[in-house]
Parts: sequence; structure tokens; C-alpha cells
Amino acid sequence: MPTAIFCGAFDPVTKGHMDLIERASTLFDHLYVFVAPNSEKHQVFSAERRLAWLKQACMAYPNVSCRIQKGLTVDAAQSVHAKYLIRGMRNSQDFEYELNMATMNRSIDDHLETICLFTKPEHMFCSSSNVRELLRYHLDISAFVPDCVRRDLEGGTHEDIE
Amino acid sequence: MPTAIFCGAFDPVTKGHMDLIERASTLFDHLYVFVAPNSEKHQVFSAERRLAWLKQACMAYPNVSCRIQKGLTVDAAQSVHAKYLIRGMRNSQDFEYELNMATMNRSIDDHLETICLFTKPEHMFCSSSNVRELLRYHLDISAFVPDCVRRDLEGGTHEDIE
Amino acid sequence: MPTAIFCGAFDPVTKGHMDLIERASTLFDHLYVFVAPNSEKHQVFSAERRLAWLKQACMAYPNVSCRIQKGLTVDAAQSVHAKYLIRGMRNSQDFEYELNMATMNRSIDDHLETICLFTKPEHMFCSSSNVRELLRYHLDISAFVPDCVRRDLEGGTHEDIE
Amino acid sequence: MPTAIFCGAFDPVTKGHMDLIERASTLFDHLYVFVAPNSEKHQVFSAERRLAWLKQACMAYPNVSCRIQKGLTVDAAQSVHAKYLIRGMRNSQDFEYELNMATMNRSIDDHLETICLFTKPEHMFCSSSNVRELLRYHLDISAFVPDCVRRDLEGGTHEDIE
Amino acid sequence: MPTAIFCGAFDPVTKGHMDLIERASTLFDHLYVFVAPNSEKHQVFSAERRLAWLKQACMAYPNVSCRIQKGLTVDAAQSVHAKYLIRGMRNSQDFEYELNMATMNRSIDDHLETICLFTKPEHMFCSSSNVRELLRYHLDISAFVPDCVRRDLEGGTHEDIE
Amino acid sequence: MPTAIFCGAFDPVTKGHMDLIERASTLFDHLYVFVAPNSEKHQVFSAERRLAWLKQACMAYPNVSCRIQKGLTVDAAQSVHAKYLIRGMRNSQDFEYELNMATMNRSIDDHLETICLFTKPEHMFCSSSNVRELLRYHLDISAFVPDCVRRDLEGGTHEDIE
Repeated sequence: MPTAIFCGAFDPVTKGHMDLIERASTLFDHLYVFVAPNSEKHQVFSAERRLAWLKQACMAYPNVSCRIQKGLTVDAAQSVHAKYLIRGMRNSQDFEYELNMATMNRSIDDHLETICLFTKPEHMFCSSSNVRELLRYHLDISAFVPDCVRRDLEGGTHEDIE
Repeated sequence: MPTAIFCGAFDPVTKGHMDLIERASTLFDHLYVFVAPNSEKHQVFSAERRLAWLKQACMAYPNVSCRIQKGLTVDAAQSVHAKYLIRGMRNSQDFEYELNMATMNRSIDDHLETICLFTKPEHMFCSSSNVRELLRYHLDISAFVPDCVRRDLEGGTHEDIE
Repeated sequence: MPTAIFCGAFDPVTKGHMDLIERASTLFDHLYVFVAPNSEKHQVFSAERRLAWLKQACMAYPNVSCRIQKGLTVDAAQSVHAKYLIRGMRNSQDFEYELNMATMNRSIDDHLETICLFTKPEHMFCSSSNVRELLRYHLDISAFVPDCVRRDLEGGTHEDIE
Repeated sequence: MPTAIFCGAFDPVTKGHMDLIERASTLFDHLYVFVAPNSEKHQVFSAERRLAWLKQACMAYPNVSCRIQKGLTVDAAQSVHAKYLIRGMRNSQDFEYELNMATMNRSIDDHLETICLFTKPEHMFCSSSNVRELLRYHLDISAFVPDCVRRDLEGGTHEDIE
Repeated sequence: MPTAIFCGAFDPVTKGHMDLIERASTLFDHLYVFVAPNSEKHQVFSAERRLAWLKQACMAYPNVSCRIQKGLTVDAAQSVHAKYLIRGMRNSQDFEYELNMATMNRSIDDHLETICLFTKPEHMFCSSSNVRELLRYHLDISAFVPDCVRRDLEGGTHEDIE
Repeated sequence: MPTAIFCGAFDPVTKGHMDLIERASTLFDHLYVFVAPNSEKHQVFSAERRLAWLKQACMAYPNVSCRIQKGLTVDAAQSVHAKYLIRGMRNSQDFEYELNMATMNRSIDDHLETICLFTKPEHMFCSSSNVRELLRYHLDISAFVPDCVRRDLEGGTHEDIE
């Protein structure tokens, strides 16, 4: 029974992420979504908040579980006995990065297979960095994020967006 | 029980194709490999010969079947009740082509999901067109094609390579 | 009063073309749309038919005129006293081609300025070649072409699609 | 009467920028050039100094005005009633960035149209970052910047270049 | 004493080719320039005429010899005891093609090293295909080709340009 | 007697670097390898340690010398009377960066020619940043670096990897 993982910063989770999660959840028996912990690349929202959003957004998918990632991607995969890693690709600039990561992960654990899905055209510009840019100027993000994220951020003061 | 298809010209089948077939065969319950019939892009070897090579090379994989494709990719998928289409990507120039094809196929049948696997570094230059170029000059192709193809071509006169 | 030209094969005209024409028609006092005559690249539909479709689709824009192109792009521009050439770009693979054409046109007539507009995401895969591929298999093209093209092609026998 | 804006860091303004400004100034009735204020990307020269250089370099163009930008690009456009945003593109790596920005700006204000001009071959390597690199080693920048910038920097001590 | 080869269609030779030949001739003791014979890609000018132009243009370089190529690139290299193959690169789209060719050539003869030089900005659009396009419309090609080519073509009727 | 330089951070030196050094050492009479000093891009290992590794790895090549670079690349070249700069290219994303650097260096000193070699497929993912990522998680780096680097790092505590 194949299991897959989907790793990311989800800073915050977008409708693009959710579309990939939905499509991957029909392909695999179980899908684990891992939230990368705060790191050098300095996430804007805390890992706990990003995980809470993901969990709420994934409630509709009974075979999807969300967790905080500790250690390497290959360790995350082994911790849930997954042999597949899901990635989404939006444009050709993503390609070289994804190819390098897939090859590195295979060199560390040659049982981990990277599987790429293409982002749908309507989500092609639906990136977390675009969402953060909109938030910085208090602009409407409802076209880009799941409702639970929008509601949570509308109620707040956004003071954690620098 | 998910089923997938893998379509191509396989003109001729290479070690790169075989690596993708092997990896896809572990991901899906059944994999159908479809050989595109001779077309405007003018294949060098006949569809029957390309199919025979594929069948021989895929003998080791009990859940892989090989056929000649008739009609569209989406028709091939429906004919075997497959909801997944396997593609391999070698470099960033493949990306825009694959993205266009995946989006077009989804616009025709939105249940057909395209799944991309990355070509391994050792097969990155292992293309059918490179094999044909080597054959044109009677050079050694053993590093690029399965043994059954090499043996069959060594015994012949290569006269169908223009 | 600036005038611009928009040249293409329009084989057939798509909703992507029409979106560019609409946007360019608001930027310029007059826009001339030139249909490239049949050439080595072998268009599928006759120049007259492509022109008729364009004229019908452009009826709503009083400052847009459609013609068959004779000679070079720079000659077409000079024939209507236009100093601007409109181009649409869909992806990064279009870039090098467009840059080469813009530089060549400037080297022939350094008063001809090329102006690029970005294709909207919803038209990113709306190319004439995709339409022709759909037509070849008698598939629905209503999402890709103006109504006048769809109606005309539905009534016909498509026998000119090889 | 169409009005356009051209936004950038101009850190410092180059001959490449000036070529784009000259070409855009003939296309539009009025062109506003906005200098981005100092930001996270940490400009080397102060916004005031960059604005002073721009103003001097644009003196020859009566329909060009220079200002410091406050807030978003779409806000800058609305503040001067501009519906067009000018961008220059040098190479295919610029493309994905520009496409994302143009699409985001349209999603915020769908009346703002992005217009791209191609950088001329002779200015293809004439970037502000290349100029700063030359300044760091006290090398000749006269081929890359307008005279007013060169004169001002030659008289100084360059101590603000780290 | 290292020897190198430079292979191409030279259909016709351009100022861009000549710049590469000049730079390569200072790097190697001897440089052999090979003209590809007429092939499937259908050259416009005969191999003899292309060779004659090259020979005239290379007269100023005593260590450069010009010949018609027979067989593979690796055979051409071996015929003159060359271990280096010169290539010019103009843009990122050339890259994947050149990488594939270099890797294939190394797989046939691992003593043949491919050496890439960057085209200078002023020759970036100086391609044989652009020259042929200009010739087709009887336009001035003096900025793109050596004098000997221009003189020869001006005196003729260009009837071999289709 | 031509001399060349090869500049880099070598943070740390990889098998990919060593392959380029070996190939360049047969092309030139003398090759100088320059280690960039610690800079804004913040190297992980000290310049002295990186130089020591390089010297040990290059012992087998009598015509290769290793030094720490001071000042510009063109200054390094002039300091050893070199007219050639060696660069390796792995993928198309490297291209635009390399083209810009080569053009800038030629604009500073038009006697400095940049020569690109293609990375071999087996070293395509053998980058210093991948090595540092592996070190961060205490993973095996023996496939990526020369033995002297591996031995030195295995004996240590890696505490300088953040």
C-alpha cells in the first residue's frame, strides 16, 4: 500500500498547495504533509500556526495527515514508511532546483522516488511569497489561500509580517 | 487499484525508457506502455518492430503490458481504465512541452493526471535520437539500449536508418 | 497619433490572440492586424479564411483593421505608418525567439519598436497549434477560439486538417 | 492621453535605463519614473541621490517626471492616473520574474497593463549590479552610466560602496 | 602542440563565426575549420561555395585551414589529430543542445574535449539564418557577413535563396 | 606558452572541480587555481583550509598551482600572465550568469578570454552546496569530494558547518 509525503514551508498554505494535496491524496493510500520547521530561510509564520492552517484545510481528506518535519526529507519519509515524495512544478525555473533535490535525495536513499505534478494554470501564480507580498500591503488574499487561512489572518493584526 | 499508461515513440526503446518503466511499474498496479504508430514525425523503425522490442524488454515486469496506440493519449488511457499518465523529464527544455501537453490532456479529460519522474543522471543523454545518430554511423549503442535491441540491430543491415 | 501592427499566422485566431488585440486596441489609436500569407511553414487554413475569421472577431473594435501581409514585417509597418509592433509572450521559450526578431527588425528599420504584452494565465495554453491538434481529433474547441471560428468549423467537414 | 510609469531601484541609473526611458517617452504622452525607496534589498545609494541622478539624466525629455515611490506599484500608477507600466527585459531569466509581477499587479488592479520593451544588445550587460561591481574596484564606469552619474561618482570617495 | 577543430554549416559564414575563429586561432597552434556537407537540414548554398567563402575570410590567419567535413565530428577530429572541438554559445537555448552534443562526442571518443567560447554581444544576433532571411528580401547584409561573402552575393542573382 | 586561471570558492573543492582542473591542465602549459577569499557570500570554511585541500588534491598535476585570490579576476589573471579563464557549466541556469561575467571581464580587460568546459554527467550534481547540505546532516560525502577533503572532515567535528 503506497504512502507518500509532501514537504514544504506552507508559509502560508495556498490554494495551489491544496490542489496538489487533493490530487496526491487520490493517488496514494496515505499522504503525510510535513511542515518544515523555522530555518535559515526565515519563515514568516510560526511552524505551529502553519501546521494548524494545514490541518484545518486538510480536514476533508481522511487519508491525509499533517506533521512538523524534523531532520532531512529522507528521514521524514522513513519515519512514515513512505517511498514517494510529491513535488509540484510551476515553471521551467523550478526544474533545475527540483532535479537537483530529487537526485540528491536519491543519492542519500535510493528507495525514495520523487513524483512531480504540474501546477494547474489557475494556480500558477499562487505562491506563498506572492501571498506574503499581498499581506504586507493589507490586500485581499482570498483568491490565493484556503478560507481558514484568510479568516485567521483577517481577524489578526498581521503584525508578524514585516 | 490505480493503473497508468506510458506513451512514446520508442524509436527505439532506450535504457532511459526502461528505467522509467521499472520505476513506474512499482508505483502502479498495472502499467500499459503504448507505442505511438508511425506518424508525420516519421519514425525510423516500424511500429511492429518497436513493439516487439518493448515486449521483450518488459518481460521481467509481470504488471507491464505493451500495445500499439490508436488515437489520442486520453483515448489510450480510457481504453485501459487508466487515470494516470507517466512522463519522464530530462532537462528544462522538456518542461514547457510537458506542461503544455499535460494541460491540454487535462482540458480534454480532467480525470487524466500527468505524473512526471526525473530521468536519472546516468540516462540523461540516453535519447532515441542519440541512438539513431549512433546507428547511422555504425557505432556502438550498447550503453544506450536494452540488450534485445542491440542484438537485433547488430544482426541486421541497418538499412532502414537513412 | 501612434499606430501599431500585430502580425501572425492566426491559423486559426484564438481567444489568446483576441485578448491581445483588445488590450492593444486601447493602447493605440489604430491597430492593424496582419495575416501572414501561406508560406514554407505551411498554414492549415487559407489566408482568406483566416482573414475572414479575424475580421469577424474584430468587429467589436472600431479602431482595429485586418489585412493580409505582403513582404516583411517592417514593410507592413511602413505601409500603414506604424512605428510599433505588438507581440504576445507566453513562456520563457518564446523569449529568445522574440528577442532575435525584435533585434533583427530594429536592424532593418530602427524606427520600429517591438512592444510585448504578457499572455494572461487563462490563455497560456491557448495556441493555434493546440487548436489544430484538437480539431484533428474532432474535439471541442469552444474554450480556445472565438465563436465565429467555432461555428464556421463545426458546420464544415474539417477536411483541410490533415 | 495615455500615461505610463517606469519603476526601479536605479542604483544607479544606467545607460540601459536611459535607453528605455527615451523609447517609452516617445510612446506615451507622459512618463513618470519612480525611484523605489530604500528597502530590504538594501540599496547602495540613498533614494535622494538616485532621484537626483535620474532627474539630471531625464532633463532632455520634457514629458518625463521623476519621483520617489511610496507604496505599491499599483498605487504609484494610480497616483499619476497611469494605466501602463513599462518594463525592460534583457534575458530569458528575467521572463518568469516579470510574468509573475505582471500577473500579480493585474490581480490587484486589472486596469494596470504591463508593457515590455527589449533591451538593445549594446545595453544587455549594462546592469546596476555590474556598475556597482566596477565601482567597488574603482574601475571605469563611463560605458555604463550617464555622464552626470559618472562625474558625480568620480568626484566622490565612493565610500558608500561597501 | 594542441590542435582544434571548428565544425559548422557556415551557410553562409558570418562575422560571428569569424570572431570565434580569430579567438580560437590564438588559443591553438592549428585550427581546422570543417564545412558540413549538404545534408537533411538542407543547406542553401553548396558546400563548395561555403568552403570558398571560408577560405577567403580565413586568409589572414596562417594557422587556420578550411576543409569539407566527411563523416562524424570525432572522425574529423581524428583525421587532423585534434583533441579539441570549438563551439560558440549565444544564448541559454543553445546550452542543452551543446551539452548533449559534447556528451555524445565524449561517449564516442573520450579524448575529444569540447571547448565553448561565448559569442560577443555585438554578434549575438549574427546568425546564418538571420542572414538568409535578409537575403530573401534583398536587404543589406554587410553588418553580418565578411566582405568577401557580401561582394560575392551582391554580384549574383540570389536565385539560390528560395 | 598559454597560461590559464580557474577561480572559485572551492567551499569545499569537489570531484567536479577536480575533473575540470584535470581537463584544463592538459589544455594549458600552466594552470593557476585561485581560491576566492571569504566574502559577503560568507564561505563556510576558511580560505586557508580551502587552499590546503586544493593543494593536496592537485598534487598529482605538476603544472597546476593553487593560491588565494586578491582583488578582481582580471587582476588574478594579470598577476600570473594568464590570458585564459576556465569556467565549468552544469546547466542552462549557469549560462546567463557565466555570459554576464565573461562579458564584464572582457569589458575590463579585453585580452582575457573565458573558456567553458561542460561538466560531465556523473558530476552534474556534485556542487559544493550539495556537499555542505550533506555535511550538515552528517551524511556520507565520499562520492562528491576528493579523499583528502573527506578524511579531513571525518576526523573533525564539523562544528564550522552551521
